[in-house]
Amino acid sequence: MSAQNEPVHLAFDALVSLLQQIFVRHGTSAEVAETLALNCAGAERDGAHSHGVFRIPGYVSTLNSGWVNGRAVPVVDDVASGFVRVDAGGGFAQPALAAARPLLVEKARSAGIAALAIHNSHHFAALWPDVEPFAEEGLVALSVVNSMTCVVPHGADRPLFGTNPIAFAAPRADGGPIVFDLATSAIAHGDVQIAARKGEKLPAGMGVDSLGQPTQDPKAILEGGALLPFGGHKGSALSMMVELLAAALTGGNFSFEFDWSNHPGAKTPWTGQLMIVIDPSKSAGQPFALRSQELVRQMHAAGLRRLPGDRRHREREKSAASGIALDAAALAQLRELAGE
Amino acid sequence: MSAQNEPVHLAFDALVSLLQQIFVRHGTSAEVAETLALNCAGAERDGAHSHGVFRIPGYVSTLNSGWVNGRAVPVVDDVASGFVRVDAGGGFAQPALAAARPLLVEKARSAGIAALAIHNSHHFAALWPDVEPFAEEGLVALSVVNSMTCVVPHGADRPLFGTNPIAFAAPRADGGPIVFDLATSAIAHGDVQIAARKGEKLPAGMGVDSLGQPTQDPKAILEGGALLPFGGHKGSALSMMVELLAAALTGGNFSFEFDWSNHPGAKTPWTGQLMIVIDPSKSAGQPFALRSQELVRQMHAAGLRRLPGDRRHREREKSAASGIALDAAALAQLRELAGE
Repeated sequence: MSAQNEPVHLAFDALVSLLQQIFVRHGTSAEVAETLALNCAGAERDGAHSHGVFRIPGYVSTLNSGWVNGRAVPVVDDVASGFVRVDAGGGFAQPALAAARPLLVEKARSAGIAALAIHNSHHFAALWPDVEPFAEEGLVALSVVNSMTCVVPHGADRPLFGTNPIAFAAPRADGGPIVFDLATSAIAHGDVQIAARKGEKLPAGMGVDSLGQPTQDPKAILEGGALLPFGGHKGSALSMMVELLAAALTGGNFSFEFDWSNHPGAKTPWTGQLMIVIDPSKSAGQPFALRSQELVRQMHAAGLRRLPGDRRHREREKSAASGIALDAAALAQLRELAGE
Repeated sequence: MSAQNEPVHLAFDALVSLLQQIFVRHGTSAEVAETLALNCAGAERDGAHSHGVFRIPGYVSTLNSGWVNGRAVPVVDDVASGFVRVDAGGGFAQPALAAARPLLVEKARSAGIAALAIHNSHHFAALWPDVEPFAEEGLVALSVVNSMTCVVPHGADRPLFGTNPIAFAAPRADGGPIVFDLATSAIAHGDVQIAARKGEKLPAGMGVDSLGQPTQDPKAILEGGALLPFGGHKGSALSMMVELLAAALTGGNFSFEFDWSNHPGAKTPWTGQLMIVIDPSKSAGQPFALRSQELVRQMHAAGLRRLPGDRRHREREKSAASGIALDAAALAQLRELAGE
């Protein structure tokens, strides 16, 4: 049976096709399947395993539960010269972003800055794939998305906020974009799940058990416990800001507002997402990408070896050269879900 | 001499007048004096002592050094339907914001979102006074400003970033705005100075000494040492974002770029500032202020006693009722600086 755990290498396109097949087989439209498959295969390719194929059983479960509409057609609303609104129709956020993207880019280039407010949407993926492509075309992008109650606000007794990530991307003259994607919780939910699956202990300060007591056991966090914000009251303030921007400002649900109890197997938070895109060519002085290159140069000179996103880009190059490594058991499970 | 240390209570307007007199006497225009005096007296009134009258000797020192232009007239540039640029002319950032404010608000209400990029500016004050007034008129505001090299990026050997604060304000239906202002360093520079003056030790994890070793001695941090970012690599990523938005995007200096060695007594970082203002009436669903009220209600229900900004608002009420408490020695120093 040991062959089951040897890695198999798959080309990016082959993985995308396989994932598309899984999504379509579980009720999504071809368009939605393509968007989600590219997103998920991209995370796996970049070594972002907690948002890679690890998520597929969750996607299948939530689609099977009827909680999310895999065939939703996003409705794009051109609200103002710098503001686009999308009703994702109870579907995933990524197809909503894809539908609004051309208008958003046009507005950002014309107005200098533009906002995209997505509501009635489910976000179950990493957030950096939403911002990175803007930086690849010379724009600066910031995005926030709220999720589901699992983080105790600093100074509170009970969980209320989601893991509420903030992602940022900016172009750079001499290399790939500068990109980060950080949960405002002390640890991402997916990483807790992965630690629980591997039977590993977490570092201190990540979460509490069902009695509100500090714990390093990922299972105690997942079973009635909760996460803590990163960086104490500051991370907590940022998490609150994400609730306000991603939910209050878009017309989406707060992380504590949706009730999926009638949909056993539901996994995806039904909330909102805000994107802000800025055209840095409107700024004064040297071109932005030369300035960001200078900042990176100085960060390295100060002794910083790795920039946020560097590891992902190295993994991406490795995957391009030798394929995406999946363990045989995981691949077999994907093939089964695809009905092969 | 003990009478020297008994608090004296001053009305807000009286403190503003006294500070105006100090600024004008040290070379600012009447307009700049008014803006800075209102800002500084407002911080003192709200109990934000590290940005209150404690800063006045620093303002005087930097004005005397010729490093900052106290008579600068900001030049406002209407760049695009959502983008305003201001050259602060080597003066303070607050008069630049004041000059651009009407245009910025008009653009935010019309485009749904607008950016203000200030460069060639000095910011020596708290950041929340820049965002709070927008929320008081129903807008959501976010601002970042970079400062001067004193924070070691996570994973680096030497300081590079400034304390690089992020401030946010949002309206709320049943009370004052939700406001926070957080340094992306583990502690604000002003608080290190206050601890050093009082001879107090800092909590662990705030900074390093001149050899890069962890220290709890504020003097060791101020004399050749440096601060750490809050929340490890996440706070560090946010600090990097502030450099990119406040400097690269505006045309301002990075925190490590200016050289004030020819201006002994110079204290004010010569950098840039970005403001993003959003009109939440463009969003879907219930009015934003009712939604933020609901979030606050749920935060209290989860056991949170104090919201960010609550302490400031209580101090403000106290100051309104009984005047702003200053110790007699500090007041005597202010009077002397005012030439009284």
